[in-house]
Amino acid sequence: MEFNLQQSLPILERTPVVIKYLLQDLDDEWIMNNEGGDTWSPYDVVGHLIHGENHDWIARVKITLRNDGNNHYEPFNRTAMFEESKGKSLRQLLQEFEDLRGVSLAQLRQLNIQPQDLDKTAIHPSFGVVTLRQLLSTWVAHDLSHIVQISRTMAKQYKEEVGPWKEYLSVMK
Amino acid sequence: MEFNLQQSLPILERTPVVIKYLLQDLDDEWIMNNEGGDTWSPYDVVGHLIHGENHDWIARVKITLRNDGNNHYEPFNRTAMFEESKGKSLRQLLQEFEDLRGVSLAQLRQLNIQPQDLDKTAIHPSFGVVTLRQLLSTWVAHDLSHIVQISRTMAKQYKEEVGPWKEYLSVMK
Repeated sequence: MEFNLQQSLPILERTPVVIKYLLQDLDDEWIMNNEGGDTWSPYDVVGHLIHGENHDWIARVKITLRNDGNNHYEPFNRTAMFEESKGKSLRQLLQEFEDLRGVSLAQLRQLNIQPQDLDKTAIHPSFGVVTLRQLLSTWVAHDLSHIVQISRTMAKQYKEEVGPWKEYLSVMK
Repeated sequence: MEFNLQQSLPILERTPVVIKYLLQDLDDEWIMNNEGGDTWSPYDVVGHLIHGENHDWIARVKITLRNDGNNHYEPFNRTAMFEESKGKSLRQLLQEFEDLRGVSLAQLRQLNIQPQDLDKTAIHPSFGVVTLRQLLSTWVAHDLSHIVQISRTMAKQYKEEVGPWKEYLSVMK
């Protein structure tokens, strides 16, 4: 499927609502348990998405639109939320994410991106040259991948309780 | 995590809403594309969930509550939706799932399941003896696993478009 901004905006818009319905007011075990080891809980994931709104996506879109061959992205701190979420309730984080995403998308619309802009490039700290098309596609896929992660983490909490059905639930593996 | 009916009901209640926000009114490519081969599209998954409401979950709960040692489940047809969804729009299917899930949960509440009921058993066509606890845990995990599947299938549509970021998105593998 080719990247299409108009077909992607509804997904970016709804991610906060999807995650709110997945998580809000659930018992803490659903929210705070992770997949074991140093994996993330749903609570951690929401903090990570907030950090992305504050420091990553729109900032990188603007840098890319400069397209001047010397437009480097700042490295992204994938684990900043372990400090930044401290003391906040999930309800606060969900609202914060929804508000920030609203601001991001208002900015994105103001930038009035045209098809030819999608080929503009910037310099990623690990990958080197990347295009605006790749960045925006990644924003969408990143949202969806964290919905995958949240739902998978929740499903796994019943790994033992499902008994023999574990065999039919590939998500448990 | 131990199975807890009160902590599980909100998840079962919200699955139709979560999936509606994930999918409704999106372009057909998001809805009808699958992960390749004989995998399912988001549209197929919603049909499968409808079939489960009509033929599987509550029917099996009732059979299990009989607990008479001769209470066999009917085999479940995992692919019935390829016929049953024909000619229906996604919007129709989403509404149908939401309505049917409402009916299922009303029935579940009427059954007034008590902690001691969770140990009641029935006979699964492949697994043999299973408990009500395992069945109800599986209902929850099954919902979540299909939210995983829908979001993963959507993310993969941008597998090529994300360029080098594919490396960071484990969902693409």
